[in-house]
Amino acid sequence: METIEKANILIEALPYIENFRGKIFVVKYGGNAMTDERLKHMVMEDLVFLKLVGINPVVVHGGGPEINDLLGKLGKKPKFVNGFRMTDKETMEVVEMVLTGKVNKEIVSYINRCGGKAIGLSGKDGGLVTADKDLSNGDLGLVGYVKSVNTEVIQLFIKEDYIPVISPVAIGEDGETYNINADTVAGEIAGSLGAEKLIMLTDVEGIYKDYGNKDSLISSLDIKTALDYVNEGVIDGGMIPKVLCCINAIKKGVKKTHITDGRIPHSMLLEIFTDSGIGTVIVR
Amino acid sequence: METIEKANILIEALPYIENFRGKIFVVKYGGNAMTDERLKHMVMEDLVFLKLVGINPVVVHGGGPEINDLLGKLGKKPKFVNGFRMTDKETMEVVEMVLTGKVNKEIVSYINRCGGKAIGLSGKDGGLVTADKDLSNGDLGLVGYVKSVNTEVIQLFIKEDYIPVISPVAIGEDGETYNINADTVAGEIAGSLGAEKLIMLTDVEGIYKDYGNKDSLISSLDIKTALDYVNEGVIDGGMIPKVLCCINAIKKGVKKTHITDGRIPHSMLLEIFTDSGIGTVIVR
Amino acid sequence: METIEKANILIEALPYIENFRGKIFVVKYGGNAMTDERLKHMVMEDLVFLKLVGINPVVVHGGGPEINDLLGKLGKKPKFVNGFRMTDKETMEVVEMVLTGKVNKEIVSYINRCGGKAIGLSGKDGGLVTADKDLSNGDLGLVGYVKSVNTEVIQLFIKEDYIPVISPVAIGEDGETYNINADTVAGEIAGSLGAEKLIMLTDVEGIYKDYGNKDSLISSLDIKTALDYVNEGVIDGGMIPKVLCCINAIKKGVKKTHITDGRIPHSMLLEIFTDSGIGTVIVR
Amino acid sequence: METIEKANILIEALPYIENFRGKIFVVKYGGNAMTDERLKHMVMEDLVFLKLVGINPVVVHGGGPEINDLLGKLGKKPKFVNGFRMTDKETMEVVEMVLTGKVNKEIVSYINRCGGKAIGLSGKDGGLVTADKDLSNGDLGLVGYVKSVNTEVIQLFIKEDYIPVISPVAIGEDGETYNINADTVAGEIAGSLGAEKLIMLTDVEGIYKDYGNKDSLISSLDIKTALDYVNEGVIDGGMIPKVLCCINAIKKGVKKTHITDGRIPHSMLLEIFTDSGIGTVIVR
Amino acid sequence: METIEKANILIEALPYIENFRGKIFVVKYGGNAMTDERLKHMVMEDLVFLKLVGINPVVVHGGGPEINDLLGKLGKKPKFVNGFRMTDKETMEVVEMVLTGKVNKEIVSYINRCGGKAIGLSGKDGGLVTADKDLSNGDLGLVGYVKSVNTEVIQLFIKEDYIPVISPVAIGEDGETYNINADTVAGEIAGSLGAEKLIMLTDVEGIYKDYGNKDSLISSLDIKTALDYVNEGVIDGGMIPKVLCCINAIKKGVKKTHITDGRIPHSMLLEIFTDSGIGTVIVR
Amino acid sequence: METIEKANILIEALPYIENFRGKIFVVKYGGNAMTDERLKHMVMEDLVFLKLVGINPVVVHGGGPEINDLLGKLGKKPKFVNGFRMTDKETMEVVEMVLTGKVNKEIVSYINRCGGKAIGLSGKDGGLVTADKDLSNGDLGLVGYVKSVNTEVIQLFIKEDYIPVISPVAIGEDGETYNINADTVAGEIAGSLGAEKLIMLTDVEGIYKDYGNKDSLISSLDIKTALDYVNEGVIDGGMIPKVLCCINAIKKGVKKTHITDGRIPHSMLLEIFTDSGIGTVIVR
Repeated sequence: METIEKANILIEALPYIENFRGKIFVVKYGGNAMTDERLKHMVMEDLVFLKLVGINPVVVHGGGPEINDLLGKLGKKPKFVNGFRMTDKETMEVVEMVLTGKVNKEIVSYINRCGGKAIGLSGKDGGLVTADKDLSNGDLGLVGYVKSVNTEVIQLFIKEDYIPVISPVAIGEDGETYNINADTVAGEIAGSLGAEKLIMLTDVEGIYKDYGNKDSLISSLDIKTALDYVNEGVIDGGMIPKVLCCINAIKKGVKKTHITDGRIPHSMLLEIFTDSGIGTVIVR
Repeated sequence: METIEKANILIEALPYIENFRGKIFVVKYGGNAMTDERLKHMVMEDLVFLKLVGINPVVVHGGGPEINDLLGKLGKKPKFVNGFRMTDKETMEVVEMVLTGKVNKEIVSYINRCGGKAIGLSGKDGGLVTADKDLSNGDLGLVGYVKSVNTEVIQLFIKEDYIPVISPVAIGEDGETYNINADTVAGEIAGSLGAEKLIMLTDVEGIYKDYGNKDSLISSLDIKTALDYVNEGVIDGGMIPKVLCCINAIKKGVKKTHITDGRIPHSMLLEIFTDSGIGTVIVR
Repeated sequence: METIEKANILIEALPYIENFRGKIFVVKYGGNAMTDERLKHMVMEDLVFLKLVGINPVVVHGGGPEINDLLGKLGKKPKFVNGFRMTDKETMEVVEMVLTGKVNKEIVSYINRCGGKAIGLSGKDGGLVTADKDLSNGDLGLVGYVKSVNTEVIQLFIKEDYIPVISPVAIGEDGETYNINADTVAGEIAGSLGAEKLIMLTDVEGIYKDYGNKDSLISSLDIKTALDYVNEGVIDGGMIPKVLCCINAIKKGVKKTHITDGRIPHSMLLEIFTDSGIGTVIVR
Repeated sequence: METIEKANILIEALPYIENFRGKIFVVKYGGNAMTDERLKHMVMEDLVFLKLVGINPVVVHGGGPEINDLLGKLGKKPKFVNGFRMTDKETMEVVEMVLTGKVNKEIVSYINRCGGKAIGLSGKDGGLVTADKDLSNGDLGLVGYVKSVNTEVIQLFIKEDYIPVISPVAIGEDGETYNINADTVAGEIAGSLGAEKLIMLTDVEGIYKDYGNKDSLISSLDIKTALDYVNEGVIDGGMIPKVLCCINAIKKGVKKTHITDGRIPHSMLLEIFTDSGIGTVIVR
Repeated sequence: METIEKANILIEALPYIENFRGKIFVVKYGGNAMTDERLKHMVMEDLVFLKLVGINPVVVHGGGPEINDLLGKLGKKPKFVNGFRMTDKETMEVVEMVLTGKVNKEIVSYINRCGGKAIGLSGKDGGLVTADKDLSNGDLGLVGYVKSVNTEVIQLFIKEDYIPVISPVAIGEDGETYNINADTVAGEIAGSLGAEKLIMLTDVEGIYKDYGNKDSLISSLDIKTALDYVNEGVIDGGMIPKVLCCINAIKKGVKKTHITDGRIPHSMLLEIFTDSGIGTVIVR
Repeated sequence: METIEKANILIEALPYIENFRGKIFVVKYGGNAMTDERLKHMVMEDLVFLKLVGINPVVVHGGGPEINDLLGKLGKKPKFVNGFRMTDKETMEVVEMVLTGKVNKEIVSYINRCGGKAIGLSGKDGGLVTADKDLSNGDLGLVGYVKSVNTEVIQLFIKEDYIPVISPVAIGEDGETYNINADTVAGEIAGSLGAEKLIMLTDVEGIYKDYGNKDSLISSLDIKTALDYVNEGVIDGGMIPKVLCCINAIKKGVKKTHITDGRIPHSMLLEIFTDSGIGTVIVR
């Protein structure tokens, strides 16, 4: 009797739900999980499921491809320096419009359609995130780092059972609008909220001890080892900033951070409702 | 990838959870589901699961076999008239001790061990249920019917996330202790609480149009038809009082009542998290 | 002694503040007051002032010129039919990005800089506004009318002392994004909130009995007369939909509606803190 | 005029009531006060009176005689080692049924009949008391000591104006049911609640300096002296564990503990509403 | 054993306390009970006792003799027309100062000294009582009748466990201060509060069927009979307005009104904690 | 356009209101501002304005002239020793009646007429202020100093949006009524409340460096300098106790104290809503 098996599976989820009830999960949403319609749909369902069983997801999203798309239509050529987008004022306006006025609202209405109650925010709303010019990679224009996070609005939404969806745009004290890396914003918000988990949906399986060797996927590592790997070059390229965000979040009080393969269906639930998880966990 | 399938099943439960969140389910717990260790364990898990996903179960239990057991040890022969237990004062004392002091506490500590927070009550606690002598089947001694239900205590427990477990013993205005049929108590409490569902775990598949013919199991019937069936003899024997309890509960405001086969694993969840259910539903 | 006079003026405002404390004012923000930097600044100050003295402003904004601007850059020619914008899917995307991702956030961060606490919303957030296709002027594409307003989010913000800033974009049951006239949205939200006032900042002095004759400005008229004037052609052109919005809002419970000249500094305060006001008031 | 005198007596109680309002009194209820119908009635009235004037009684009861009674009927001979009951599994079942299913509910319904609102609990309800095997007197079977007290349920009841009535049965981590001495449970619960008073209703006048000499009744002693008396043999026999419970409770924060003669009518009120009291007080 | 008897008396009060918990008693305080030091002390104790056992007393006081005293010292001769004080502006000032600035504060600090928490109010505080000129006995100057009662302040005090003490002075819409008969104010406030009881402490035993015949004291009468007695002259003189106040209060929702002999010690308690009471009760 | 200027002035007040919202201002009300009808009216308006914009005024008043007036009518000659009133029992009675029964209620009803909600208190109400005999200037009879302040009542009123108006009369432990200097009471209450400001309305412009030289008005000084000035005689006479009250209040946690010219219209508002203020500010 197949339905009984289904019931068994629901029951198996019990201890995980018990464990995480009332906790906050900050989810960095980007990559394939955002562009593939089927994966997208599953992410939305996963978010609504979490909320329904008493877990509080907070979403921070990126939106690179759509930004390039509009820039292209406007005849602006995206320029990158060491992988960072040169962001002049005109580009910033496009970035903000796409992230806050398009991607954010798409996610919001998708969640609502799946039975959740989502509200979209940018870092400007309710003074949520303030920024300052980030010069760590040279002068890239309106690229910022997080200067302060005011979680009052998020806490309000969580209490009233809304799912906050946040675009990584913030205001500086100089009145300028800044674009901040979405991973960074997710990490800082997770830290400020004292989140239980920071889950980064990426387009890789996780961190490999020996890149190229599929069997060397690291299931779990602590922040000391993670830093060593960064220094030794085991972790490199685009994975470095993600790992540093995780370490930063943990130092600020997040319990566990997950670098997860968003290309796997329901990867978020798998990370939560199985003991092993599917990607790489970084812990204290 | 089997775990993904599991996630899919969790997600499938979403609309049901959404639908029932914050609602009250009164569960009449008895029969095989109470004596078979494996089924018992599943019932406890199901109750804790319901609570965790925001549904409020209230348990009313019977305890016939254990009462007979102690009566036997005490050298008292159970006496029944038309299926009703003759309950003299000494028998009543045994009934109360077994139900309230043994069966009830077993259920309570079982739920607690499964991660729930249960509290046991008899109808005497907080004036929950008062009784009067039931003479409808002749003078059976201290057999009572429900005179009043005061749900204040139950509501308090629900609000504070406890699962109330209730034994069907009540006090009369005459100061006597009365034994009341557990189905009746479950139905009256469900009615007083305006419960969403009354689920009766029984040892039959449900109601048959043509008893003996397995294919004639009735999936759903309204109270008018149910009454007709009782009058026509389609429903007879021990099923009659159960059906009348359901009808009574519906008239008092319960949305749906389920006569369910408690011998099927997780029957309670199946009744809830599948569209068809497995037993017979009686609705307005 | 000039400062004493200032104190006198503060005191003069007392009875108005007393009268309006705790009430909701829905402000339709658009036109010159939105493009002229000096006027814009004053509107922001006025909003913060209202909130500080205990009045709850809710802002609904338009954004026509900036939409045309981006459409232009994208090489799309704005097309209008009887003054209504033909809105194909691509145009709608631009409309939404500009309104929600640019204009809305500018207002939000401006209010925050003036000492208020603003949060930007589109009709998609929290299911605030749903739309359906508006065919009353022929098929204009994704032009919608307001199908439902769910003020839960707005009420939450008001209670927590935020100023909600709303862009007139909504989602349809068909999953499509619709553009709705900002006046309409302001009127519907005012009605749903049972607002005390609906204040429309426009680029005219108000309604004239005899257009062209400056002395014929109508200070106050009731909805019956307003309708008569529409039928008689006294009110015509672009003023008609504004007047109909006001009438609609009043019918839904708004106490007073104001058609006010946003080109006058602090026009919003003048409308409130003087007995006569400066524009045209429409009342029941 | 006699009624005026009555009023005077009510007024005399004023300063005591003032002093104890909102405080918790844990009452160990046992002995004659539990078997003599007249005394029993008075205890119930006293409890309801306390609650009505704003004092919060919490009752812990014993039940030895009734346990022996049922054991006898079942042909089981009570076995004691150094005054402690050998408690095999079958005996434990009887102990629990009698305490929780008979004695407890009798008290509960008696209080309710006197106008109070009582709820019966065993240590199993809401995880109130957990136990571990007590080997301090050799292996007596399922005799336990208090491992933890979770006062959440009691606090909830106090807040909602219920009188909690607790039977000294608890669950162990091993899943076994344990019987614990009622004095011990009363002392531990008083300590965990930070009670104002622990009142032990006994069948003696109090502690005597010189047993046999009625004039040597000790009115008050501190815990140091009490311990000295135990060591010196002044306090001996069944009084020792009672005194140790009192000392333990005081160390955990109880203000005053009373060893009182429950055979005197309204002994509980006398202990409270007279300066001298009638038994022995142990204080820090 | 005398102390046991005392306990018995406390217990006897139980059903009365139960009955009246959370209810409001408005007490008109005047006459001998206000001037005799011993009686005064007992009234204060009674008020504090009521509050402690959960009953909410509200005091309205008179102060005739002390007013005359100060008027005398100021060389003003009290003038009365049909028993009503001619109250010119200067007299009114004296009345207010004595009632609000002397008598009221004496009562307040007396209650506080007895362990209660009292706050003094005149009808002017928080807009408690407004008045209009009472011309029913001719123009007596600033003698008023109650125009409106705003119980917001009283309710606030009751909720925070204060005993409100009210002097019968009120403000008119004309800005004048009015003196109102204390019986009237007590009756109106009792009515507005939906009080359980209005207790009038007077200098007579109650109402007599046959004045002069001590045996004809009426224990209880309904409002219809009371009105008949007024019309037939059975009730006359100064008793008439008191009886009319009682009738008025009952019509506005007060359950029972008492005309009680304040010269008897603890008369207030006797009225409450005995079945018969000592004076005359008027009921619907 | 004059009305626009008015709006500008309202807007100018914004940062001050923002700054002070939710804060407490204790106002010592006396002197000309209390006797001149026009100034009085303005003080009332100012108080209501403060409350309306979210600032919480607490008023402490004096009343010297009216006391002398009644004493005169009673043929009692006011006696002063070093500027302190000799207060025998009879005088004290007059002081209390005038302050609490006349002046206080006049202020209360005036505020109410201006649209505020005021409640009058003396130090006796709710145990607000207790006193002890002040012998620092010799035995002046019933002249007291503040022994304790219990702000519970004031906090309650503030929370419920009432303006408390307090007369400087208190009760001693000896049961005597004491008159306390109103400046002292204002300072102590401000300190106990942790007020933002203590504003003393006086009949001088402020403190002069060089009395007689109008240009030497000191705008601001810290408590060290203030003490030096007292010691050096720069501050002398009746200004000394006022300055000491300010210093005391600051030491107890008040942020700023103002000695202000109450003869200037709206002086209270000017002190608050202008940067410079008009009198002398004493700060830490």
